[in-house]
Amino acid sequence: MALRAGNQSQATRNGLKEKVLTLDTMNPCVQRVEYAVRGPIVLRALELEQELRQGVKKPFTEVIRANIGDAQAMGQKPITFLRQVLALCVNPDLLSSPNFPDDAKKRAERILQVCGGHSLGAYSISSGIQLIREDVARYIERRDGGIPADPNNIFLSTGASDAIVTVLKLLVSGEGPTRTGVLIPIPQYPLYSAALAELDAVQVDYYLDEERIWALDVAELRRSVRQARQVQTRECIEAVIRFAFEERLFLLADEVYQDNVYAEGSQFHSFKKVLTEMGPPYAGQQELASFHSASKGYMGECGFRAGYVEVVNMDAAVQQQMVKLMSVRLCPPVPGQALLDLVVSPPAPSDPSFAQFQAEKQAVLAELAAKAKLTEQVFNEAPGIRCNPVQGAMYSFPRVQLPPRAVQRAQELGLAPDMFFCLRLLEETGICVVPGSGFGQQEGTYHFRMTILPPMEKLRPLLEKLSGFHAKFTREYS
Amino acid sequence: MALRAGNQSQATRNGLKEKVLTLDTMNPCVQRVEYAVRGPIVLRALELEQELRQGVKKPFTEVIRANIGDAQAMGQKPITFLRQVLALCVNPDLLSSPNFPDDAKKRAERILQVCGGHSLGAYSISSGIQLIREDVARYIERRDGGIPADPNNIFLSTGASDAIVTVLKLLVSGEGPTRTGVLIPIPQYPLYSAALAELDAVQVDYYLDEERIWALDVAELRRSVRQARQVQTRECIEAVIRFAFEERLFLLADEVYQDNVYAEGSQFHSFKKVLTEMGPPYAGQQELASFHSASKGYMGECGFRAGYVEVVNMDAAVQQQMVKLMSVRLCPPVPGQALLDLVVSPPAPSDPSFAQFQAEKQAVLAELAAKAKLTEQVFNEAPGIRCNPVQGAMYSFPRVQLPPRAVQRAQELGLAPDMFFCLRLLEETGICVVPGSGFGQQEGTYHFRMTILPPMEKLRPLLEKLSGFHAKFTREYS
Repeated sequence: MALRAGNQSQATRNGLKEKVLTLDTMNPCVQRVEYAVRGPIVLRALELEQELRQGVKKPFTEVIRANIGDAQAMGQKPITFLRQVLALCVNPDLLSSPNFPDDAKKRAERILQVCGGHSLGAYSISSGIQLIREDVARYIERRDGGIPADPNNIFLSTGASDAIVTVLKLLVSGEGPTRTGVLIPIPQYPLYSAALAELDAVQVDYYLDEERIWALDVAELRRSVRQARQVQTRECIEAVIRFAFEERLFLLADEVYQDNVYAEGSQFHSFKKVLTEMGPPYAGQQELASFHSASKGYMGECGFRAGYVEVVNMDAAVQQQMVKLMSVRLCPPVPGQALLDLVVSPPAPSDPSFAQFQAEKQAVLAELAAKAKLTEQVFNEAPGIRCNPVQGAMYSFPRVQLPPRAVQRAQELGLAPDMFFCLRLLEETGICVVPGSGFGQQEGTYHFRMTILPPMEKLRPLLEKLSGFHAKFTREYS
Repeated sequence: MALRAGNQSQATRNGLKEKVLTLDTMNPCVQRVEYAVRGPIVLRALELEQELRQGVKKPFTEVIRANIGDAQAMGQKPITFLRQVLALCVNPDLLSSPNFPDDAKKRAERILQVCGGHSLGAYSISSGIQLIREDVARYIERRDGGIPADPNNIFLSTGASDAIVTVLKLLVSGEGPTRTGVLIPIPQYPLYSAALAELDAVQVDYYLDEERIWALDVAELRRSVRQARQVQTRECIEAVIRFAFEERLFLLADEVYQDNVYAEGSQFHSFKKVLTEMGPPYAGQQELASFHSASKGYMGECGFRAGYVEVVNMDAAVQQQMVKLMSVRLCPPVPGQALLDLVVSPPAPSDPSFAQFQAEKQAVLAELAAKAKLTEQVFNEAPGIRCNPVQGAMYSFPRVQLPPRAVQRAQELGLAPDMFFCLRLLEETGICVVPGSGFGQQEGTYHFRMTILPPMEKLRPLLEKLSGFHAKFTREYS
């Protein structure tokens, strides 16, 4: 199979030819993609790790990756029950071993029963195994207090990212000024800007807490989300739904942190539940796609790439197109589907694994809550750093003051000032965090994103080291 | 997060609104996607299976899915060593069990050692775990008789499909008449046409064994590939490389069937090896991407979605763009990466698992070879069916004669004639095969694609049932 690139006329017919595929001939949309969570900072962190392994002397002995919500990489132990069932599914010879609890064996048999050839090694149907989508539907029904969920509206995916990109793909159309625009909150998770650049869609930013001149409709949205926090209030969700309905917008709800709510008095409200309880005309009409994943929550099983999307009020013909589009990649990874099944239907109180499962789950969530609190406390004790309460998810997004001379030095180096700060932080302390400019922030303000995931015994020294570096950096450029 | 679709002007401001996302407003490229391997025939097969489960009487008791190369769904047993190591990786508590061979434990420990937090549940870097890419590089070097492979040119992926789409994404650019065109052989695997439709690239067909009027350059390619079979000769590969070099084409080599060569005297030649041995100017310049997967071969582990691509002579700046693009999806599934590692570095002769591994591998390949032979024999005994030797891979693509009245009836129903034949076959026998029109074929000829994967004891009756149905169908419409 062969591929013809554009610049044939530039070919040098004799002697050394230039490459067929160059920055000039390649897909310009791909070039516009930016993805800060895995950008230059992370590439430099990888190099530093390699240098440390090669014995190069550094002012630190390890790189601490606080750039991405990767719980198990930071030492969180997998939940025992999940891994027991998965091992049984992977190697069914173990079903005769006395070392596995009965409920784990029953769950593995139940999953294998619905796999092609009773094996994780067979493809599933493209939208994911029917039984697992039924389990997801029941999970959503429990979560939303009995509001029905239809397994046919649920699509399993290779992590939530895959499902998000699939839905965005359906949505983009038109050329030039009629090209689909996507409203995204700033700060945003850079998957959205990256996927939109790749799809050549128009990104329309709205800020979560800042004045900015917009057309009237967007101002209305801005007003409605002004009080948005990491954990959205029910009123805020209602306002977003009303805004979307009036403006004829398709809603995408990234709800992968639904298990990660720490702040007292805060509670997770699903968009679907709020939408349904708002009644007509919203309930039966407003189109919505809601995403969830096994990568976050208490399980943190990022490496398995497991997720799902539930679509609500989607046009039936469009939904058929979605099935077709997903079928081109054949199916989501089947081990991930099995894992997701366990997440959405954990051991019941009468099961032998229930007590241990609950204890492990609660321990993870309690530790995350404690780390959230500690992060806020330590940063707010540091002059020049201001950190909002970490109400949910796995990240802090502290604002840092950077002295004008540091800003000037960054500009000389062609770097965003917070990128300059984060690079220096990495080089001198081994701490890898992501500059706020990768997520979007108010002009003239500087932030970084840091996970709260490092183990407790490392988190306090890390926070103090980071605060200390900021003080030193500030002195250096004052 | 909210998304604005195009047809705001059509909104009915009061009363029941039409959907925001409809066939009229959605991405037209997605609508153009066709994917026969999972198309209407497969959807109907799913319905039939559900009807059988519900007790609906049919002229058959099970649906036999011969539409897709899904070995384990057809009863092929997983290779023991692969699943032992994976179970140990999934649940490292098993490392202390006496029921696993020592080499399996060592391999699991080696893999876990390089996973974040020593767990399959952590993200890997986007191009895949370094050690596993090194193992892939050594595997390619062995395969190609020592020609060097650089781990930095290897990207692990979610099955080969994912890697193919990634490379195609890099390649498409331009608008209208300058839009990138991709030459694909007919019959083709419909992933290519589907991905090209999604990316809005231009598909340029070339036929493998048929006269057709083309511009001179394409006629040259056509001549060079006229003798192409399922297993390409070395001379044919050289001709393709010369053609690509002269015409400044980027080569994509889908080599997922490199272990599946059955015909005596046939041998797998990798494009990279042939390219390298051709020397200058080809060796150091011709750009190539070669794809492989753990879904096919003797292992057939489709459900794990494991694959890789090696890029050769790719422009360094473009390769950086590729790393960035892959990072948007975070990483390939880590259980699949672990599996791929075992495929590319199987047990060595001195390992305790070597004998069993070899015996299982050879048994699978020997049975596939026997099934390939049987398929050719039975079909060629049937009047009106002609089947080429199945030299490699997992499929036959027999040509069937359809009587003119059947063709006419199909046209009345708005179906391609071979789709009509395959649908009738499915309804009356439960055998699910894919019409040739989904892969491309000469105008006025009809084919179907059928895997050779059903177990030996089922394959002969299935082939005879299919031949018998064709005879009956022919009588009915004569």
